[in-house]
Amino acid sequence: MVTDPIADMLTRIRNALIAKHETVDVPASNVKRAIARILLEEGYIRDFTEIEDGKQGILRITLKYGPNKQGVITGLKRISKPGLRVYVKKDQVPKVLGGLGIAIISTSKGIMTDKQARKEGLGGEVLCYIW
Amino acid sequence: MVTDPIADMLTRIRNALIAKHETVDVPASNVKRAIARILLEEGYIRDFTEIEDGKQGILRITLKYGPNKQGVITGLKRISKPGLRVYVKKDQVPKVLGGLGIAIISTSKGIMTDKQARKEGLGGEVLCYIW
Repeated sequence: MVTDPIADMLTRIRNALIAKHETVDVPASNVKRAIARILLEEGYIRDFTEIEDGKQGILRITLKYGPNKQGVITGLKRISKPGLRVYVKKDQVPKVLGGLGIAIISTSKGIMTDKQARKEGLGGEVLCYIW
Repeated sequence: MVTDPIADMLTRIRNALIAKHETVDVPASNVKRAIARILLEEGYIRDFTEIEDGKQGILRITLKYGPNKQGVITGLKRISKPGLRVYVKKDQVPKVLGGLGIAIISTSKGIMTDKQARKEGLGGEVLCYIW
């Protein structure tokens, strides 16, 4: 059993980018589906699909590389952790590298980027940074 | 004439890292000397020395690469700019990627990292982020 499935997802993506893999598989969950959707919408990944395995399902993420073969994602960092949850108020939603990256926030209206949370006037749990 | 000498310094370092150069030369100034000193103290560069050129002098920065030939510096971003200065109060000093990177702040007690500014209880101008 994985104690921090989001950290596990970020680590799998990080390792796959270093190895220049085209895709990476992650055990599915609603939170991880929401994170994958944001990565897709924000242009950090090329695609993701769900694979049935008769259990929880698998998210297959297709990674995105630039013309220089560098990953479009240059970094991922877990912020809130099972042992130390990080919550922010609506006026404390962090910017990542002055807007160069994104924070993924779990709010009362769902999982969204820092930009969306600021627009909606929502705080929440800071799941991770992507840049 | 360069309108933003700090942006010019960051661009020169960024380009030299992409080209995997061992050193990079930057026209010297007191602010740039202070930034180079912080990069050295924080382990982002290997060394820097000053070269006399009969004019303002040149800072020769020796870059630092990891075992995988990746630069130890993965990103540099100018924050405050001549056309749009960014100042923060002592309780607003930004963290860069949750502490993974540094902000370089120009305070009333000199140029220092975000961590030092927080410790000294000082705000100031946010010159740049390094990560």
